[in-house]
Amino acid sequence: KMTSKKVVELFYDVVSPYSWLGFEVICRYRNVWNIDLKLRPAYLGGVMQGSGNKPPGVIPNKFMYMGKDLTRLSEYCEVPMQFPSDPFEVMFKKGSLSAMRFVTAVQAKEKSGDRQVEQISRELWRRIWSQDEDITEPASIAQAAVKAGIPEGAVKELLELSKSKEIKDKLKLSTQEALDYGAFGFPLLVCHVDGKPEIFFGSDRFELMAHCIGEKWLGPKPDKSTAKL
Amino acid sequence: KMTSKKVVELFYDVVSPYSWLGFEVICRYRNVWNIDLKLRPAYLGGVMQGSGNKPPGVIPNKFMYMGKDLTRLSEYCEVPMQFPSDPFEVMFKKGSLSAMRFVTAVQAKEKSGDRQVEQISRELWRRIWSQDEDITEPASIAQAAVKAGIPEGAVKELLELSKSKEIKDKLKLSTQEALDYGAFGFPLLVCHVDGKPEIFFGSDRFELMAHCIGEKWLGPKPDKSTAKL
Repeated sequence: KMTSKKVVELFYDVVSPYSWLGFEVICRYRNVWNIDLKLRPAYLGGVMQGSGNKPPGVIPNKFMYMGKDLTRLSEYCEVPMQFPSDPFEVMFKKGSLSAMRFVTAVQAKEKSGDRQVEQISRELWRRIWSQDEDITEPASIAQAAVKAGIPEGAVKELLELSKSKEIKDKLKLSTQEALDYGAFGFPLLVCHVDGKPEIFFGSDRFELMAHCIGEKWLGPKPDKSTAKL
Repeated sequence: KMTSKKVVELFYDVVSPYSWLGFEVICRYRNVWNIDLKLRPAYLGGVMQGSGNKPPGVIPNKFMYMGKDLTRLSEYCEVPMQFPSDPFEVMFKKGSLSAMRFVTAVQAKEKSGDRQVEQISRELWRRIWSQDEDITEPASIAQAAVKAGIPEGAVKELLELSKSKEIKDKLKLSTQEALDYGAFGFPLLVCHVDGKPEIFFGSDRFELMAHCIGEKWLGPKPDKSTAKL
């Protein structure tokens, strides 16, 4: 029965490496848990500004730990992550506004399901967080789109569309929705349980989240885990 | 064989609620995993200052989330936590310096094992994070100590000792050791694997940590979990 599926929304931005981990893990659970996953591309810069949160300053111990933590997690979760040569430039200077507008345009045009949104998001993450490549230039976004399986003709249209007021407003709206749920960073998972939203920040609350939605946590690679059972 | 046990150090401060969660979980794993747990009371204020980290500002969404997160986690982990009426006063004004000096004194005097350090730490956490009680006054610390099973005569001596240069220096040294491992907050778990320290910050990396030390994660209540197996 479709209606018995619990809706789980994932708010994310491709500039955020922890969002990538959260994205891959929850995508794997789509067919393992009885959930209806809704991908919610949004703009991290807007969430930081709207919540009054500030990116962590240059605290050497914190920065070094984050590198170590992401390396270990990416290996454990099997997400092929690699630090870009200048993470601060990537995260705080160049940002992701045009990329997230493009993802929003893809979502607006995708007729059924979210296969293309999923694929373009993954390809954009791969560029920044695996291959140390740009995601701000139209040519960069187009390359990611083609790799995501979007036909070249459609890519041109989507690049145009992503500059429209309609799409800019749509991204603003999603970002505002995340803020209204209580976001102060990404990823943010919103589980609708008995009509109430339960929010989980970060990629490290899946075990707790499973408990809250009445499902079983099988680790970050549930397919392998179930294969073993 | 004792020498095959992996040494796991837990750096913590009773002012930190996430430290309490980490403490209870790792204490439960003492006899489940093949580890030699070393409790390392230290001073969070010193770690924040030494690393250049700052307590999170008053970001309403973040603060509300933290309350929700701790409530859910304390229930899931079965640690009886309750927010004090004024958490900012408790965490950032009153602090924990005298309390952590007392814990350090208990550790310095404890002849074998760390049963008393464990108990006094738990009773101090219980005061702040369960019963909204003070831990800065000598009378408050003495009450916690008696509840922890320390004889009243010894409590007086320990209160005196906790003001000595010896104990102040011991606490400073532990705090510095945490900083040298890369701390920027607590709890910090340091696992000694093949002669190299692997550090884990927070109470939400146990599954990853288990993987790194070659043990199995059985959730925050391993006794119940193993009972079911």
